[in-house]
Amino acid sequence: MDADTAALLASLIRGRSVAALATLHDGDPFASMIPFAAVVAGPSPRLRFVTHVSRLSAHTRDMLADPRVCLLIMAAESAGVPPQALPRVSLPCVAEFVPAEHPDYEPLRAAYLERFPHAADYFLLGDFSLVALAPQSARFIAGFARASTLSPADLAAAVAGAC
Amino acid sequence: MDADTAALLASLIRGRSVAALATLHDGDPFASMIPFAAVVAGPSPRLRFVTHVSRLSAHTRDMLADPRVCLLIMAAESAGVPPQALPRVSLPCVAEFVPAEHPDYEPLRAAYLERFPHAADYFLLGDFSLVALAPQSARFIAGFARASTLSPADLAAAVAGAC
Repeated sequence: MDADTAALLASLIRGRSVAALATLHDGDPFASMIPFAAVVAGPSPRLRFVTHVSRLSAHTRDMLADPRVCLLIMAAESAGVPPQALPRVSLPCVAEFVPAEHPDYEPLRAAYLERFPHAADYFLLGDFSLVALAPQSARFIAGFARASTLSPADLAAAVAGAC
Repeated sequence: MDADTAALLASLIRGRSVAALATLHDGDPFASMIPFAAVVAGPSPRLRFVTHVSRLSAHTRDMLADPRVCLLIMAAESAGVPPQALPRVSLPCVAEFVPAEHPDYEPLRAAYLERFPHAADYFLLGDFSLVALAPQSARFIAGFARASTLSPADLAAAVAGAC
């Protein structure tokens, strides 16, 4: 992936605050919206997404039953731009519920609250959970006939470069 | 569902031109973007979505292998609006490939081209297919703590009212 494409991917991931989340719902595909923050961390850096979800939500029950999910982050629609030209990235992920005593909890919570300061109150409610989504790969479509498949290492490198 | 909520749902479905599509990809959930048009038709009116997809796309192969999908239509992100306040609707659907000789082909194609006039050229290519997505239900989240579950008849009534 060239530097311009990597920068476009980083700007898509850093610039959006909601994604579509595909989950398995009793074996059927389900799609819902989640707020997310992107975090690059670790000795051999990797990208993860962090979200904060209510146990009342269908997607939360789905992720508790099966951690296989897929995120889709799409550029904003824009008048006069054909849909096929909109950058978007599909990210098959494994979802991990992160309990408060986990060493990653505080940094993930801080990253989420930096993106969504208004969400602090939700952390006072008992029925919300912090969930980390670890991409297993990515399919980035930068525009017409501009598709790339990325490894987790490629992804971390592209997004870390934008920090 | 009250009239204001129905109008908000209709405006979301009529106002957006791309959706997230959840499919089953070898048993895993996958999420990708599709352009769509909404069509309400029939003697007992029902809402369907129509899209036009390349056989080279993962979601097309997924729908050929298993017609169970879920659409997610989200309002545009807006500065200062918390994600939880954004209207969005999840629509579990059955996907049906509509061949050119099917009586629904021309009206569906016309509805799609009305929404995406630039897409006419794609209809000249052999590897694109017209696909109708029939919602089996809908989960509409109009904003904070404003969730409704709708039947196909409720959906058709809400969206037809906006034509």
